[in-house]
Amino acid sequence: MNLAEKYLSIRRYSEQICEPLQTEDYVVQPVADVSPPKWHLGHTTWFFETFILKVFAPGYQVYHEDYNFVFNSYYETVGNRVIRTDRGNLSRPGVNEVYQYRSYVDEAMVRFLSNEVDAAVYELVVLGFNHEQQHQELLLTDIKFILGHNPLFPVYHAEKAESLNLSGGSKSLLTIAEGVYEIGYNGSDFCFDNELNRHKVYLNEFSISPVLVTNQDFITFIEDGGYQNFNYWHAEGWDWVNTNNITAPMYWHKLDGKWVNYTLQGLKEVDLNKALTHVSYYEAYAYSCWKGMRLPTEFEWEVAARSFNWGERWEWTESAYLPYPGFSKAPGAIGEYNGKFMVNQKVLRGASIATPEAHSRVTYRNFFHPHLRWQYTGIRLAK
Amino acid sequence: MNLAEKYLSIRRYSEQICEPLQTEDYVVQPVADVSPPKWHLGHTTWFFETFILKVFAPGYQVYHEDYNFVFNSYYETVGNRVIRTDRGNLSRPGVNEVYQYRSYVDEAMVRFLSNEVDAAVYELVVLGFNHEQQHQELLLTDIKFILGHNPLFPVYHAEKAESLNLSGGSKSLLTIAEGVYEIGYNGSDFCFDNELNRHKVYLNEFSISPVLVTNQDFITFIEDGGYQNFNYWHAEGWDWVNTNNITAPMYWHKLDGKWVNYTLQGLKEVDLNKALTHVSYYEAYAYSCWKGMRLPTEFEWEVAARSFNWGERWEWTESAYLPYPGFSKAPGAIGEYNGKFMVNQKVLRGASIATPEAHSRVTYRNFFHPHLRWQYTGIRLAK
Amino acid sequence: MNLAEKYLSIRRYSEQICEPLQTEDYVVQPVADVSPPKWHLGHTTWFFETFILKVFAPGYQVYHEDYNFVFNSYYETVGNRVIRTDRGNLSRPGVNEVYQYRSYVDEAMVRFLSNEVDAAVYELVVLGFNHEQQHQELLLTDIKFILGHNPLFPVYHAEKAESLNLSGGSKSLLTIAEGVYEIGYNGSDFCFDNELNRHKVYLNEFSISPVLVTNQDFITFIEDGGYQNFNYWHAEGWDWVNTNNITAPMYWHKLDGKWVNYTLQGLKEVDLNKALTHVSYYEAYAYSCWKGMRLPTEFEWEVAARSFNWGERWEWTESAYLPYPGFSKAPGAIGEYNGKFMVNQKVLRGASIATPEAHSRVTYRNFFHPHLRWQYTGIRLAK
Amino acid sequence: MNLAEKYLSIRRYSEQICEPLQTEDYVVQPVADVSPPKWHLGHTTWFFETFILKVFAPGYQVYHEDYNFVFNSYYETVGNRVIRTDRGNLSRPGVNEVYQYRSYVDEAMVRFLSNEVDAAVYELVVLGFNHEQQHQELLLTDIKFILGHNPLFPVYHAEKAESLNLSGGSKSLLTIAEGVYEIGYNGSDFCFDNELNRHKVYLNEFSISPVLVTNQDFITFIEDGGYQNFNYWHAEGWDWVNTNNITAPMYWHKLDGKWVNYTLQGLKEVDLNKALTHVSYYEAYAYSCWKGMRLPTEFEWEVAARSFNWGERWEWTESAYLPYPGFSKAPGAIGEYNGKFMVNQKVLRGASIATPEAHSRVTYRNFFHPHLRWQYTGIRLAK
Repeated sequence: MNLAEKYLSIRRYSEQICEPLQTEDYVVQPVADVSPPKWHLGHTTWFFETFILKVFAPGYQVYHEDYNFVFNSYYETVGNRVIRTDRGNLSRPGVNEVYQYRSYVDEAMVRFLSNEVDAAVYELVVLGFNHEQQHQELLLTDIKFILGHNPLFPVYHAEKAESLNLSGGSKSLLTIAEGVYEIGYNGSDFCFDNELNRHKVYLNEFSISPVLVTNQDFITFIEDGGYQNFNYWHAEGWDWVNTNNITAPMYWHKLDGKWVNYTLQGLKEVDLNKALTHVSYYEAYAYSCWKGMRLPTEFEWEVAARSFNWGERWEWTESAYLPYPGFSKAPGAIGEYNGKFMVNQKVLRGASIATPEAHSRVTYRNFFHPHLRWQYTGIRLAK
Repeated sequence: MNLAEKYLSIRRYSEQICEPLQTEDYVVQPVADVSPPKWHLGHTTWFFETFILKVFAPGYQVYHEDYNFVFNSYYETVGNRVIRTDRGNLSRPGVNEVYQYRSYVDEAMVRFLSNEVDAAVYELVVLGFNHEQQHQELLLTDIKFILGHNPLFPVYHAEKAESLNLSGGSKSLLTIAEGVYEIGYNGSDFCFDNELNRHKVYLNEFSISPVLVTNQDFITFIEDGGYQNFNYWHAEGWDWVNTNNITAPMYWHKLDGKWVNYTLQGLKEVDLNKALTHVSYYEAYAYSCWKGMRLPTEFEWEVAARSFNWGERWEWTESAYLPYPGFSKAPGAIGEYNGKFMVNQKVLRGASIATPEAHSRVTYRNFFHPHLRWQYTGIRLAK
Repeated sequence: MNLAEKYLSIRRYSEQICEPLQTEDYVVQPVADVSPPKWHLGHTTWFFETFILKVFAPGYQVYHEDYNFVFNSYYETVGNRVIRTDRGNLSRPGVNEVYQYRSYVDEAMVRFLSNEVDAAVYELVVLGFNHEQQHQELLLTDIKFILGHNPLFPVYHAEKAESLNLSGGSKSLLTIAEGVYEIGYNGSDFCFDNELNRHKVYLNEFSISPVLVTNQDFITFIEDGGYQNFNYWHAEGWDWVNTNNITAPMYWHKLDGKWVNYTLQGLKEVDLNKALTHVSYYEAYAYSCWKGMRLPTEFEWEVAARSFNWGERWEWTESAYLPYPGFSKAPGAIGEYNGKFMVNQKVLRGASIATPEAHSRVTYRNFFHPHLRWQYTGIRLAK
Repeated sequence: MNLAEKYLSIRRYSEQICEPLQTEDYVVQPVADVSPPKWHLGHTTWFFETFILKVFAPGYQVYHEDYNFVFNSYYETVGNRVIRTDRGNLSRPGVNEVYQYRSYVDEAMVRFLSNEVDAAVYELVVLGFNHEQQHQELLLTDIKFILGHNPLFPVYHAEKAESLNLSGGSKSLLTIAEGVYEIGYNGSDFCFDNELNRHKVYLNEFSISPVLVTNQDFITFIEDGGYQNFNYWHAEGWDWVNTNNITAPMYWHKLDGKWVNYTLQGLKEVDLNKALTHVSYYEAYAYSCWKGMRLPTEFEWEVAARSFNWGERWEWTESAYLPYPGFSKAPGAIGEYNGKFMVNQKVLRGASIATPEAHSRVTYRNFFHPHLRWQYTGIRLAK
């Protein structure tokens, strides 16, 4: 595949994710962290337009002057006055307009990529690919949130599975020896700036589970009163549980004495043997305490990962999201990509069933605030 | 027009209001007070289904069991768990489904109304008409809010005017003599329960303006520093101004030194001679103080109203929304219609350019919280 | 009593109210509506200093330049920066300093009042008396709140009663004939601006109870599920009940199956035959609905008041707090006294056991927001 | 010094810190993070009573049953009802009562410590010492907050300095070689559980400043527009700056063009050569970015600390507060001491001028949320 073909293939996948949607599903934003699907489609397009076409494609005509703030920042001025435009309040541009915007930019990009590009531009294009792939995962989880919080519980796709059945096999803990290990990306393909600067860390001996916590495991925690016993929780986790009346993972409901959960296939009975998902870091930590174990650090995870299957759930680690030694931000707007989020967030490792193919690496550092759980998060225990 | 024809004519008008919309415009809810257009279309339909067809039409099959809570209350339980379903977060049922719901109920209603109905049912049907007409006014003002807070400022309709040009003519104050007057509805057509019990009130002599405050009048107030001088404001009005940085009526922006405002025809220069609109009670009161005058009470307004033109703006009065002597709630759910809102709201009298024809009466009591201004509100001064 | 003696007598009473306090009790502000006792003592002093001594007493030296903002407004600037100084966060000036401030101002006032004052000054002095008397009622209710929300439930005074036993006697409703009545103050002594402009109102025939609702009456409402049935409540009252988990009047606790309440004498069993107190307007309204009756308007109350005993509880009326015909604010800072609060508040009539002697009038218009209940409020029913 | 003497000496120091206070200063709580001084005095007493006297002193009579919840948790029940008792709303127990409580417990402790205690009890007593010393630092910083946010800016003590003048000497960066280092406490005296499990870490070569950032340094940042340029800030730091209008360190005011700051000696001109203090982590990070440097990790700090003077300011590190390898909570209530706070907080190293003598160690791990700055925090740069 040449670069233009690669471009089109990635772009097409975003639209495929949206195929089952009705127009109305593209528009809503039920909570601040979930963006309307049409915003994702527009924002990823705006990225290519802004950082590549406007800068490097001679004679490129911007599609619509106002899209810069519709698909970029939250604030803009009309005259002297500031209007807050929350994404979920914007009915325009409509879905058709957004698809036309995509077509317009796609044509220009294909034309642009039909010529040789230099290394710096190539890097930006590949960053755009990875940026769009990140939003593809968010697209699917945001769609799940939108449909799964609708009282009609509409089906997204009758055959879309949310499990890889990796949890089978031996459950015996793996032991990793004490010593100095190398952490971080050192290949020659794309990676994000936060993975760079491969460096040494010293690890004590530790044990780690080759399998993820299952729904059945977690039901045992619930039934043992795990959500009611503050001893298992961080102080802030305990506040979160009580302020929000949390009694189960997201999407779970107890119906006539049975646990059901909303899935992309609609409301289904909870499958006991499948890998647990949609838990916050607070819940992952509480579960591990209750079990007398702990979560691995991201370094332990990266070292041990070649010894187990991963890729089904984003796995909460004990590590805070911090810069690697020697980390430095890229200059300009691209430099805002990662560094400015390096406080108050936890690292997740692995990948999930929503991660686009070829967008997972053993060194990939995903990160979210500890209370969030609308991603396909999961738990792996260590000791 | 027989009752079924009347029914269809009213129902059709709701849909005509929505004709200029794109599907996406039906879905969003930018602030709590503004409902998505598709919710209005569904809720008014649910009213006829719930209070007439389900009760009085033999063999009527409910269209969809879950619509009861989608189009009625905000809360519902799935199993033991409560889900809050804010109107603006619900992409489903979609716009087409809502129109199909309307068709289904309309057919059943027309069939039902083709037979004679008794007096009690007749009253409920007419209440349904008036209920839908109230929502027609909200539909238009909510649509204006949705489009007028979009940074693309889309045009609703190129020819829809928002003014009746009633403000011409003499501006001399009218004087009404002291004495006992009768207030409240005493005709034989429909009115709301809050207008009933015609009763006597004693009024001192007062003067009232035959014309509304114009945009030019209000710009003088702005330029005289009206929004910056706490002496003109209620304590709560002053808090409202400062907390929300209010410096002009809703929809007004100062662009290159000129006042422009969003209208149903798009962003336009403010027309100086037209009747001011989109001000809160707090602003109406402050303006009247600055002018050394006051707002009329709703009783003064009702007595004087035959001596001036009205119907262009909902006119804020000084009166709080309270029960008339002898007011009593209707039994059952219908009884929730008015009485439970009789605290912390101000009465507005008149009607506006958004009021459906034949839905305005000199005794009509509209009411809103004092900070709200997305309706076509205006100011008439008294002394 | 000459004016100076009257001054000292009123001033002394404020200090008597505080006699049972420990220094610490003077300082705290548990909720925004409750002010620290030392603030009341300072603020009433600041009133005489600012509006009388600084203006009319030649050569008067202000006690402390900074007290102007400590005892007046909430904001002040140090250089270019604004500091918010909530009353309950200020440990200084301390209680002794505040008493010294009072002595200093009292000496100056007595000196000033030993000479003849003209009519305008006399009016201001008398306004100062009434201002201090209003704060005396707040002092006592604020002290009750401070002590009654302390988990040690300290006794204020072992013999301070909170009831006048006016509720005995016939319970038969009084009937008042339809007609034109005069409302408002027309004597020659002091009254507030909001009572002025005696004017005519037209009243329909009505009935009113000669006695207040008792604790026993209200327990019947509670036991009948009154707090759980939305039919009795305003929509905003229902929200208030549910948001704040209201299940009884303020200060009531159910202990071992019995109702106890905090009183100025400490925690006591609820006395069933005494007049109910510490209910909000929302509760008063809900109770009246449950009873199939209603609250009187302030006009009905004023007309009927000579036919029953009052003065034990501030009685919620159905009336909103609005200006009388011809009401106008006094010029200058004194004009802020009443008018700027005339929105979103309900009128209470009568007086309470906390009202200083000679500070109650049949035309007195007290006013509070509908959710407040730390005053000695009560319920009288009408029909 | 024997154990009882040590006990009394530490206990006396808490009271010495409070000597300059007026009674009122003991009571207020201007923000949630700042506790009233009398609460600190009571809470540290409650610690000895609850964990030592009640458990190990035969026949000990608890001083007051209700103090358990006044000086421990925030919630308690009276009958079936929960009362929230915020510390700053409680005027009782008063200051004298708290000092009597201290005397009572002190007598019992001295009697108890006059006999030999076993190792487990000894450890608890020493934990109580360290607990009280931690609160001594908070006492002083909370007092500074209370007085420094009072518009009268009262002096705490005319001679109490807030600087150690350690910032002199060479400013050349120190360089530390790459390699494996040992981190954590391994002495035989007291340390907290979060310092335990001395373990190896691998550090890259780094440079670190031997001196702290000064007031003059930081003024240069301010004057260069540091607070106005989002490029230097974390996204959450930028929100914090804008939401709270932060334009300078806490306690700084610009007066007539000069920077003044509140100190324990009152309002003083900012001393340019002294070590900067009262900045948040967000400000420390932004300053380091602006300087083209960074903050050290807590491991870098611990390794380098023997090469520079420290103890004047708590120094923000880049490290998140996380468990050391093998960390485990003590069983029982004591186990709540540290572990439950290990999320969303940053580590500070060193000590400050408010740290009690003999309460600082090179392995000590202090921690606060990134926005807090009422402690004596400071900045040391690394590279």
